[in-house]
Amino acid sequence: MPRVSEDHLVARRAQILDGARQCFAEFGYEGATVRRLEEATGLSRGAIFHHFRDKDALFLALAHEDARRMADTAAEQGLVQVMRNLLKDPAQFDWLGTRLEITRRLRTDPEFRREWSDRSGELTAAATARLERQRSAGRLREDIPTEVLLRYLDLVLDGLVSHLASGQSTDHLDAVLDLVEASVRRGHSKS
Amino acid sequence: MPRVSEDHLVARRAQILDGARQCFAEFGYEGATVRRLEEATGLSRGAIFHHFRDKDALFLALAHEDARRMADTAAEQGLVQVMRNLLKDPAQFDWLGTRLEITRRLRTDPEFRREWSDRSGELTAAATARLERQRSAGRLREDIPTEVLLRYLDLVLDGLVSHLASGQSTDHLDAVLDLVEASVRRGHSKS
Repeated sequence: MPRVSEDHLVARRAQILDGARQCFAEFGYEGATVRRLEEATGLSRGAIFHHFRDKDALFLALAHEDARRMADTAAEQGLVQVMRNLLKDPAQFDWLGTRLEITRRLRTDPEFRREWSDRSGELTAAATARLERQRSAGRLREDIPTEVLLRYLDLVLDGLVSHLASGQSTDHLDAVLDLVEASVRRGHSKS
Repeated sequence: MPRVSEDHLVARRAQILDGARQCFAEFGYEGATVRRLEEATGLSRGAIFHHFRDKDALFLALAHEDARRMADTAAEQGLVQVMRNLLKDPAQFDWLGTRLEITRRLRTDPEFRREWSDRSGELTAAATARLERQRSAGRLREDIPTEVLLRYLDLVLDGLVSHLASGQSTDHLDAVLDLVEASVRRGHSKS
């Protein structure tokens, strides 16, 4: 494929994903109809579904973008920094809510759950690698296995997404994240 | 009102709430149509909406039941025990998923959010009172204010609901809750 059409393809996909993200954030998963996706992307349904099989594929591609961005942060700075970044970016909160709307599908539709986990695998891998480096450097508490610490941080991240997406106050959340960070560290402060 | 019809009223409300809870768990908030609510409760729409204004009112009454039950546990044994009970009761997971489906409404519909918070106020009050008793007894870590510890436990509870509702593995979650419990205690173990 000549270079110019590769660039075009990448730009077109980005245009579709940006519009779709806004559309999901504004109307929710169910509310993001084909007509609204057309309006949000400025493209026809033919053009949109030429690039993405269906609405699920669009949604999973957005989840993949999130996972990749979070994985980059997690690899360098860990999962707590991923959470601090979420907290600093209220514009994301509506989109985060859309992620919660698909929880039922994750539970009841094994194929969808598999595709979703495939796309978040990068984040898990990056977070695990970072924890293992921290462990080797003697910075993690030694009484708790890495997989338990990972599950703990994941659970707090899920809680933060749910909290922010429901529009609750962000009071005290910086202090909570300090507590979470300290609780996985070696020599975490004793009162 | 004579005693017999009070009993009848209470029994009828319980019948409606039990059926509605199953119906929401199976079909989700949107999917719980009036026809399905009739089937699940074994009552006509007239009877159902004689007792509850509309679907929102039914849903909020169920949220209130949850909050009251959790508040009873939290008052005696704390929020971590509330989480341990959730973990032991997989039959609840589908219903928990329904709670996530209304996240968008919590964020975008101030009236609905206010009614929701009114109904969960009991749980917050019970958890706060328990933390304050623990603090007085010298069992809480002293370097972190009670409201931060409460927000922290709330966040983990939200994360647990989200995790269980999406049908993810419960591996390591007991160990995670041990870690959470230890991290709010005075003299939490130092590695």
